[in-house]
Amino acid sequence: MINRKNIAFAIIVFAIIPACFSLLYAQTADPLPSWNDNETKKRIISFVKKVTDANSGSFVPKHERIAVFDNDGTLWAEKPAYFQQAFLLHRIDQISDKYPEWKMKQPFKAALERDYDYLRKMDKKLLNKLFIMTHTKMSQDEFDKLAHEFINTAKHPKLKKLYKELVYQPMLELMDYLRDNGFKVFICSGGGLEFIRAFSYAVYGVPKENVIGTTFQYEMKEDDKGVYIYRKPEFVKPINLKSGKAVMIQRYIGTRPIFGVGNSNGDIQMLRFVASGDKPSMNLLLMHDDEKREFKYDRGAKVAFEIAHKNNWQVVSIKKEFRVVFPDKP
Amino acid sequence: MINRKNIAFAIIVFAIIPACFSLLYAQTADPLPSWNDNETKKRIISFVKKVTDANSGSFVPKHERIAVFDNDGTLWAEKPAYFQQAFLLHRIDQISDKYPEWKMKQPFKAALERDYDYLRKMDKKLLNKLFIMTHTKMSQDEFDKLAHEFINTAKHPKLKKLYKELVYQPMLELMDYLRDNGFKVFICSGGGLEFIRAFSYAVYGVPKENVIGTTFQYEMKEDDKGVYIYRKPEFVKPINLKSGKAVMIQRYIGTRPIFGVGNSNGDIQMLRFVASGDKPSMNLLLMHDDEKREFKYDRGAKVAFEIAHKNNWQVVSIKKEFRVVFPDKP
Repeated sequence: MINRKNIAFAIIVFAIIPACFSLLYAQTADPLPSWNDNETKKRIISFVKKVTDANSGSFVPKHERIAVFDNDGTLWAEKPAYFQQAFLLHRIDQISDKYPEWKMKQPFKAALERDYDYLRKMDKKLLNKLFIMTHTKMSQDEFDKLAHEFINTAKHPKLKKLYKELVYQPMLELMDYLRDNGFKVFICSGGGLEFIRAFSYAVYGVPKENVIGTTFQYEMKEDDKGVYIYRKPEFVKPINLKSGKAVMIQRYIGTRPIFGVGNSNGDIQMLRFVASGDKPSMNLLLMHDDEKREFKYDRGAKVAFEIAHKNNWQVVSIKKEFRVVFPDKP
Repeated sequence: MINRKNIAFAIIVFAIIPACFSLLYAQTADPLPSWNDNETKKRIISFVKKVTDANSGSFVPKHERIAVFDNDGTLWAEKPAYFQQAFLLHRIDQISDKYPEWKMKQPFKAALERDYDYLRKMDKKLLNKLFIMTHTKMSQDEFDKLAHEFINTAKHPKLKKLYKELVYQPMLELMDYLRDNGFKVFICSGGGLEFIRAFSYAVYGVPKENVIGTTFQYEMKEDDKGVYIYRKPEFVKPINLKSGKAVMIQRYIGTRPIFGVGNSNGDIQMLRFVASGDKPSMNLLLMHDDEKREFKYDRGAKVAFEIAHKNNWQVVSIKKEFRVVFPDKP
């Protein structure tokens, strides 16, 4: 008898046959094609197999498979200025119309002139004041609009691409591979929480609730449409760097991650937090050693590399491990 | 030719045929069997159909389908003491061996004697001091152990069941139904973040990272095993109640929820935050009006019901809407 249920059943069966072939293909296809067939790739695949195999003795249940990635310099390029610093400078440009005296007054002068030497040496407290000045005293909706405008148009000064195209293709594949194996992938960045959230889903497939970052205090306010969130000129403590990363991972996730990826001294505590748990764990530390395709630097990362070598964390040379650095098409 | 791929293919096809029948069955089965066929159930199903139908004009993409549930009195019984208060009293019992003078000294005397009248009228600041005294100055691992022990053994004084069995079966089904339709279900409670996390997955299927609650400050500390989280005797601000719930939803989730469930004045701002967005939304407010099967009270909820009536939030009478209150087997 042909009825609606039979038709539905037939549709499902015929839709599933090609799906089975894809599944067979997927099982044999290389999950990390932009990684060279070196030690890093082998270790990653072996780790994932181990924690997802219920009979391995190293099995980790799905809801406890947490991976944390630093953002700037780990998921995308951070030189000459990390992305949010570029946004900060852009915001100072925007506001400067109202303050003509800034052209002669530091640190605004350096910001307007893109004097990166000055900016890098600038006192951290002063830098934080600039962040507060450009990122707060507005509704969350207004901030989201400013962030989206910037992200969709801002180009890298040297590499001549949109910033959002400067993500590392191998890291996109690694995040997909982990998610395909039941991991929940989080970003844990010193950068601003809501700034990263403005592009995390579109660029990395990471939904907003899986972003941990440095955060401003909020206040609930009210207008004719109802209630909304207002961004106050004050940081939530701790700042999401160094030991703050371990603290915020506990606060936001509550489960100790088993997979960590970073690239600098600011990530040491996060990676140590990953490695100090009872469960099997794996850490990667990205090394910027490819002047030709990306940048070459180790400023602010030397201690991290020493600790990585001592603790058998996998050091990932961009030069040797990345077959491709940036995606062809974003 | 019979090879491993063909066998794998055959296994997949034969495994899928019964799966198709289950799928057909699932499409016709009642997703909310413990709800009576009244207005609430109809409105919930109609709302979910609308936001998940790409052609409805009210479609909400999967990654933005966020639902927030209050915990005490919304997901489970909160009388005569909400669960964490029971844990607080239990912790005071545990510690009291060291302080024999507590038997004569308030507020400890009231706690040891379970004098709920005294405890309810107690100054909030004093109550918070008791929480700090019993919940902090220990590692997160130590706290988890204490919380698990309590959750697995503590019985409700009147209903004579384990507390964790006093969840509302209709709410469990509602959470499942929402998740089956691509929603991400969060708990947003005035209760302690890590206390709720100690049972949220086992009892509600809500993983730790989907819990928002009142939080203590943490510090990263170090021992021979590596780094760990220490619970400091200090609250993170704001406390997760009233406008604090809207603030913390922004901080933790970053996307305005489209579905909210609460039961008291402490949930008003959360539900208003849900209702004030640009997307379609739905709010439920649970009414405790069933003295026979649960409890009857409206203390601390009157304003919420006034606002619910004005704004067409769905008021849910336990008496009329819940066919079953507690699960037969937890």
